[in-house]
Amino acid sequence: MTTNSAADRTTVLVCITCRASSDPTDAPRKGMALANATARALGNAVDVTVLRVRCLGNCNRGLSAAIRRENAWTYVFGDLDAERDGPTLIAGARLFAQSTDGLMPWRGRPEPLKRGLIARMPPLSFAGEPADPETYAFGARAEIP
Amino acid sequence: MTTNSAADRTTVLVCITCRASSDPTDAPRKGMALANATARALGNAVDVTVLRVRCLGNCNRGLSAAIRRENAWTYVFGDLDAERDGPTLIAGARLFAQSTDGLMPWRGRPEPLKRGLIARMPPLSFAGEPADPETYAFGARAEIP
Repeated sequence: MTTNSAADRTTVLVCITCRASSDPTDAPRKGMALANATARALGNAVDVTVLRVRCLGNCNRGLSAAIRRENAWTYVFGDLDAERDGPTLIAGARLFAQSTDGLMPWRGRPEPLKRGLIARMPPLSFAGEPADPETYAFGARAEIP
Repeated sequence: MTTNSAADRTTVLVCITCRASSDPTDAPRKGMALANATARALGNAVDVTVLRVRCLGNCNRGLSAAIRRENAWTYVFGDLDAERDGPTLIAGARLFAQSTDGLMPWRGRPEPLKRGLIARMPPLSFAGEPADPETYAFGARAEIP
């Protein structure tokens, strides 16, 4: 179990090189528009950090952003919308910032951050699951927090 | 630019809950087979750490694994094969361990770790790109190291 303190920084990383495959290559990148919308949604608040990043590698399912928190899991999201999802990302980051187990809660998570999950990564402190498969009870995939 | 030292740990995280959508739910998970194959490919070497993880969230394009290095980028890969890609992941981790710029080199990277790229994430020390789009010269997407 990962525990978090309020001092752990929560960061939204927005891919600024993302564009829809149908967009002309000489048009402004929609990823930059999403980054700007996310920064606007944060405004002058300082509880979340918004960073622009060149290419999160999720080019098939852009627009893309990641939300991570020190000593907690990292989440990558795709299929985002520049007009809709600036506030979505800030809301997700704030939900995550309040969790006590290092995971972004499924309950209350904005819908685009449920269906748009691309990948999640454990914190650096993660020590791995045991090798013995007998210790697992695998069910059907349900909610992946 | 991120700089790395040989002391930075390189880790392969293999998703043990991954299975192909066509696999019966009561069969052993192929993800566990990939984890075991990766551990076998490492053998007694200690230059890379192999960890098992429950669900990297890339369920649509499993089997999945991530390779990360302290103070460097993190990479998530999908469409992996349990029979083929244990040695692939170890080779990719070792290539990454030798890089000096915090990125996994494209040149020499095993093919499954090129076409299977799902996402990449910058190191925690990443401070973000500037907000001014004038500073970017966007080309067509080519190789994303």
